[in-house]
Amino acid sequence: MSATFQGIDPTTGTPFGDNFTEHTTGEINSIIEKAAATKATFGATSPEKRAAILRSIAKQVEAKREALIEVTMKETALPNGRLTGELSRTVFQLEQFAKLVESGVHYQAIIDLPDANWVPAARPDIRKANQPLGLVGVFAASNFPFAFSVIGGDSASALAAGCPVIVKAHPSHPNTCKIMHEAVVAGLVAEGMPAEIFSMVQGLNPEITHVIAKHPSVTAIGFTGSGMVGKLLVEIAAKREIPIPVFAEMGSLNPVFFTPGSLKDKAVDQAKAALDSATLGSGQFCTKPGILVVPNGIEGDAFIVEVEKYLATLAVAPLLNKGIADRYSAAISNLSRSGELGVFAGQANSSGFGVTPTVFVVDWAKANGELLEEHFGPTTVIIRADFADFAKVAKSMEGQLCAALHLVAGEKVQEIVDALGEIAGRVIQNGFPTAVAVTAAMQHGGQWPSSSSHTTSVGLDSIYRFMRPVAHQGFSDELLSPALQSANPWKIARTVNGVITKDAI
Amino acid sequence: MSATFQGIDPTTGTPFGDNFTEHTTGEINSIIEKAAATKATFGATSPEKRAAILRSIAKQVEAKREALIEVTMKETALPNGRLTGELSRTVFQLEQFAKLVESGVHYQAIIDLPDANWVPAARPDIRKANQPLGLVGVFAASNFPFAFSVIGGDSASALAAGCPVIVKAHPSHPNTCKIMHEAVVAGLVAEGMPAEIFSMVQGLNPEITHVIAKHPSVTAIGFTGSGMVGKLLVEIAAKREIPIPVFAEMGSLNPVFFTPGSLKDKAVDQAKAALDSATLGSGQFCTKPGILVVPNGIEGDAFIVEVEKYLATLAVAPLLNKGIADRYSAAISNLSRSGELGVFAGQANSSGFGVTPTVFVVDWAKANGELLEEHFGPTTVIIRADFADFAKVAKSMEGQLCAALHLVAGEKVQEIVDALGEIAGRVIQNGFPTAVAVTAAMQHGGQWPSSSSHTTSVGLDSIYRFMRPVAHQGFSDELLSPALQSANPWKIARTVNGVITKDAI
Repeated sequence: MSATFQGIDPTTGTPFGDNFTEHTTGEINSIIEKAAATKATFGATSPEKRAAILRSIAKQVEAKREALIEVTMKETALPNGRLTGELSRTVFQLEQFAKLVESGVHYQAIIDLPDANWVPAARPDIRKANQPLGLVGVFAASNFPFAFSVIGGDSASALAAGCPVIVKAHPSHPNTCKIMHEAVVAGLVAEGMPAEIFSMVQGLNPEITHVIAKHPSVTAIGFTGSGMVGKLLVEIAAKREIPIPVFAEMGSLNPVFFTPGSLKDKAVDQAKAALDSATLGSGQFCTKPGILVVPNGIEGDAFIVEVEKYLATLAVAPLLNKGIADRYSAAISNLSRSGELGVFAGQANSSGFGVTPTVFVVDWAKANGELLEEHFGPTTVIIRADFADFAKVAKSMEGQLCAALHLVAGEKVQEIVDALGEIAGRVIQNGFPTAVAVTAAMQHGGQWPSSSSHTTSVGLDSIYRFMRPVAHQGFSDELLSPALQSANPWKIARTVNGVITKDAI
Repeated sequence: MSATFQGIDPTTGTPFGDNFTEHTTGEINSIIEKAAATKATFGATSPEKRAAILRSIAKQVEAKREALIEVTMKETALPNGRLTGELSRTVFQLEQFAKLVESGVHYQAIIDLPDANWVPAARPDIRKANQPLGLVGVFAASNFPFAFSVIGGDSASALAAGCPVIVKAHPSHPNTCKIMHEAVVAGLVAEGMPAEIFSMVQGLNPEITHVIAKHPSVTAIGFTGSGMVGKLLVEIAAKREIPIPVFAEMGSLNPVFFTPGSLKDKAVDQAKAALDSATLGSGQFCTKPGILVVPNGIEGDAFIVEVEKYLATLAVAPLLNKGIADRYSAAISNLSRSGELGVFAGQANSSGFGVTPTVFVVDWAKANGELLEEHFGPTTVIIRADFADFAKVAKSMEGQLCAALHLVAGEKVQEIVDALGEIAGRVIQNGFPTAVAVTAAMQHGGQWPSSSSHTTSVGLDSIYRFMRPVAHQGFSDELLSPALQSANPWKIARTVNGVITKDAI
């Protein structure tokens, strides 16, 4: 008999909605094989067709907006405004990828024509373009039920690349996953594509992760979540007979540094902004500022006074699930017992998976161990240090998804900026790490242990995780992909003998 | 007392030239730390300056041409013509990278200006550019004493990226390595750069590989060589506290398929061309065709008759070192003992590390095990199969650096071409895999186990292995790299709001 499970309302801790039957290993293997079998069909779609498919999916998702918001609010306790914005972002993202695919830029086509004067020998006709990797395993994240779940960034970029997808639904929002999966399939089918291009499995059993990561037909993995699971996936993938790339966005502390100038006369505003960022979505963002580096001296002292005051007024919505809430509460009470930390508390929320926002204050010399681990939920650690040591503080940090620095003109900060560029994938001036725009210049992916690679999981460049370059040498036109044919039938931008052009050759 | 070693003349097996003292672990650690300390200085060089450095290195290498060719011929037994061409390629490669760096294209700069109408929220100013990873460990290959040794493809692309380099010299050509290292350092110093940007260690001790791959200051590895060492490096790098990328080009069989049409009336020419490719450089190329897939039937039969005839006339120069020669001879005699294979032999060379060119013939149904492993040296395996099964044969193969297909117009080959594109990084029509042009469209990197990633180690795109993207959000111009400043002081091509331009903003 297969196990079943339900969604749970975090505001009460009680199950509700459909009974979901866990997929068995046999079922998962069969689903994966059917998904992988669509690889050639889907990979061969023209830019125009693939863009139409992405838009068709976006349309079907948009059509489910009302049903989604209702059920997702219920199973995540995230507020309507947040979910409405996140769903818009998810639909927008599909349109962004549709535009990219239409342009053909993602093929990165390079054509070098024969050159008799090349060194050390004549250059033959060589034409290179990216082609899809094949079936991509996507692991839905709990904290972004739309933007990093079923048809979030990983799935959208994989589909845009021409890869079929197998999603492991997140058991924290199974009803959301079900509706979203149906919407994506409807979008595919409306364009005459096989439903199996986008397949999904449900279940609580952690073994499902292993089954997907080990299956020989899975060619890459996209993951957003904890360092523990991310590192497990990296390890499983490396031990396969044929290792595959794992693009894992894992935990990150996203430190925010404040210079004395940035706090002078702005303690109230900065304290409010920092705590709003740290408690956004109940502190369940991979970009949550988990560390605030605050200078010793009166500007820093004033900031901390305001943090304590503002925090005392703050309550947050319950956390996403029992596991997150339990881990949060355990970490907070453990840290609170330490005699060496300042501890400020916000308002307690004791219903369902509710918790208490908590901020710790510590001197840089004592900032270590559990304090410097990611704690999902509404908490952050204020590290006090001399401004003169800020570059040293930055250099001593582990790899991060992002980092921010608040400053005013005239302060000596170049060394700090450069140090932050070495540890993080995105550096922000006078802002906070939460909010990640879906755009070409975005970089959401930093240094280990925040990421398993130097790629980005947000923005247009995320498509390149799921493609690989293949060169064709000396080929007859009719055997080449249209992306590389001399007539350029898809009218895409290509680099021909070093010059970007949409012309035929 | 430190161990010493000498170069060895493969034509006689006797040592000659300088006595090299092996670097100890302590020395290697100290050399690595000094090299890593140049990271910021070197990484910050402007496109113009870095191009000048690459050209200065090229000039110094060219200045040593005579001395290099003489000593490299002696320690590799490779002929003058081959080494002259390889040295020209090595110098040309530096010039190609100088041109790329000058253009600034390698920054892949993307600037997205603020947009109030972005979804779901206003887009801030975000600017992304690649920056160098840091110190790169390069492992010189035995079989390309110039093109993949001290200042070969890996080192040239790492320097172009702005990364300092630590090279492990190949003990098969220590004198070559020494001269080459001196030339590179002279090129750096002539441009006022610290010599430590390009550091080298020598030794036979396999522990040196571990010391380099484990050192915390090493941020990436470039490797060309055996699958055994490549996989070891991948494993060591994955187990580090902070894992690093290993770009390993490993063994490959580079299958060449012949359709019946491609052999009809061309048995003599095709047999000669195939064996010339398989025995080029005494069969010591990573692109050597280790498998020839030949159709059952009269065209295939005629080809094999010509292979046997032509092979009987062929002798090759001694192999590069005793290890390679011993492994070759052991594999050949082991395979020759199998009763199920056809065996053809060329002319024996019994001086020094000389061996006998040998070709095996086997039916596809029996092609397995040791036959399908890479055997460095002048050998290849002819697999007989029905032409109708060629796509199946291709699909059954492991990942390859490259693959080739000989055909004539009108033959049904699309499925074979597509299958080869799935297993290989480069697919060739009517040609052979040896000879890899240094050009933008080149792809030298295929699927596991031939490569540890989907990147290329030859051609301009190899630079991207050693850079990573970093986004700066909301930054004041003066704190940004010139690559991202609004005035575009380096006059590089950038993608601004989706449009490629060299203009200021």
